Amino acid sequence: MVAAAANVSRVAVSRAFNPHASIKPEKRDRILKVAQELNYTPDMAARSMVTGRSHLVGIIVPDVSGPWESQELDAMTTALQAEGFATLLFRTRDDFSIDETLLTYMKGFNPDSVIAYAENVRPATLARVLDRAVPIYVGYPDEAEPGSEPAPLSDRLDVLQRPGIEQAIALMQGYGARSFAFLAGKTSSLATAARGSIVRRVLAERGLPPPIEIPGDYTYDTAYRATLDQFRIHGPVDAIFAANDVGAFGAIDALRTELGLRVPEDVKVVGFDDIHQAHWKSYNLTTVRLDLAERTQALLRLILGRLRNPTAPSLVETISTRLVVRGTVG
Amino acid sequence: MVAAAANVSRVAVSRAFNPHASIKPEKRDRILKVAQELNYTPDMAARSMVTGRSHLVGIIVPDVSGPWESQELDAMTTALQAEGFATLLFRTRDDFSIDETLLTYMKGFNPDSVIAYAENVRPATLARVLDRAVPIYVGYPDEAEPGSEPAPLSDRLDVLQRPGIEQAIALMQGYGARSFAFLAGKTSSLATAARGSIVRRVLAERGLPPPIEIPGDYTYDTAYRATLDQFRIHGPVDAIFAANDVGAFGAIDALRTELGLRVPEDVKVVGFDDIHQAHWKSYNLTTVRLDLAERTQALLRLILGRLRNPTAPSLVETISTRLVVRGTVG
Repeated sequence: MVAAAANVSRVAVSRAFNPHASIKPEKRDRILKVAQELNYTPDMAARSMVTGRSHLVGIIVPDVSGPWESQELDAMTTALQAEGFATLLFRTRDDFSIDETLLTYMKGFNPDSVIAYAENVRPATLARVLDRAVPIYVGYPDEAEPGSEPAPLSDRLDVLQRPGIEQAIALMQGYGARSFAFLAGKTSSLATAARGSIVRRVLAERGLPPPIEIPGDYTYDTAYRATLDQFRIHGPVDAIFAANDVGAFGAIDALRTELGLRVPEDVKVVGFDDIHQAHWKSYNLTTVRLDLAERTQALLRLILGRLRNPTAPSLVETISTRLVVRGTVG
Repeated sequence: MVAAAANVSRVAVSRAFNPHASIKPEKRDRILKVAQELNYTPDMAARSMVTGRSHLVGIIVPDVSGPWESQELDAMTTALQAEGFATLLFRTRDDFSIDETLLTYMKGFNPDSVIAYAENVRPATLARVLDRAVPIYVGYPDEAEPGSEPAPLSDRLDVLQRPGIEQAIALMQGYGARSFAFLAGKTSSLATAARGSIVRRVLAERGLPPPIEIPGDYTYDTAYRATLDQFRIHGPVDAIFAANDVGAFGAIDALRTELGLRVPEDVKVVGFDDIHQAHWKSYNLTTVRLDLAERTQALLRLILGRLRNPTAPSLVETISTRLVVRGTVG
């Protein structure tokens, strides 16, 4: 019907609805306009049966409402829509307790690709369940764990965390900090483990004592209480490197509102992520930036690259980090 | 295969995978365990062709990374997963510019239900495109606009915004505020229009002058600059009622960091939403709470009620608001 009304072949209509098919832009526009007038849409379920493509990309996160996760999800959904995919959102738990159920369920939707954080879903578990999509893992190669399980075929986004962390410690040292604390994220998190490990190495390389470890879980409330405990029970430090921005906010508020200390004069604080909230004046946080646009584009290249070549060996993209200097160091 | 291994009928296996089918819990658990051992999953695309159900719920938001939106998305996704649905996420624009394209695209996935905010997607547009799912709109009945288009069949979550706003203004008046400003959200937003209208009426009922209107768009940066402009160019007010919490944060930071004013001593501030960040010590915001758990359960009842009875007349759920008193009024 659309083909007849637009005076083109049925193949052309099919191509017009596939963002990856080669077709002249004007021709696509004309066909889509006719289709819209006729209120025609290709049924994705029927199409999926024929093409084996669902046009769904699964994203697995433990907490959609975390500022970093939600900002990444927003950017990825926008980018995926522009390429003709929809985001299928799954929320897991960071204790791995619902992995099997969740992944079995996800498999039923036959996603074309799945983006997962290795710290939330174990690679071997994911590979066993997914039979077609090649998952994409976000990894931290600066500090690979020697004992970790060998991953089955998966694509990877490597995030180089060291450059930004080195800059952060150099800046705090330059402003006179000698004693450091590392405010951790969740204990199960590979990202926080890698960040802590890099902090310890960089301090050692610079002839500084190892950091005090303040326990955390990426949340504001835990960071707030743990910072109070550290300063009241164990004594003060010159500088706090937080595993994420939200934790840094909790530390800053504990220092200023309950401990009567000034940031940065008395204690220097650096975060990690550079979420939108980091520039809010109450915090004005110096932080290690993981560039969201760069990260989104790298993930998109992995998804499209894998769909073009399903049998390729593991694809890898690498992005780096850098320090954004605001007002919490000096 | 699963039926044979679990020694049950094929119908029982099908029921075990449908969260809404009646089946004994022990039997379901046993069948799902056998299915898991055999790595069996029902294909949702194939199943969708047979049952007409996709087990997908579309959620349309203009910005996934807004704290309120992301916190709602997190709660909804968790609740939907527990009922056997996956969240299909769509990001629209608040200027309506991609509605047609987006909705045509969404229709292809054949969602069982769609949750939309009327201020982002026009009801008539959505109804024209969706042929099966009955959309759910979030509405603000305190201040219905007489000239608005009559909605086609759709279910509705009514949010009563007036109770919380009345409490907020009474509290600020009780602490001595006489001149008020309303810090608006986006001009296209029905929620912000309704909030502003309620503020004007409540002030009038209490014999107070009408509020100064400070333009905003729900973002921190705009609220920050607009509050500076208001105080520097047009003069101060005793109290600011912000259309959302993030705007209230921007106003508070402008007052404290650039205008040298104290909150609440010099200016009282109240927000709207009660997002997680509202209790952060730097803000410790008194705000009108839209209870997220209550809202999620109401939306879920609408979705399940509609699926049970596709031809029912419009279903309506109603939730209310209340003031959460923290430290920004007195």
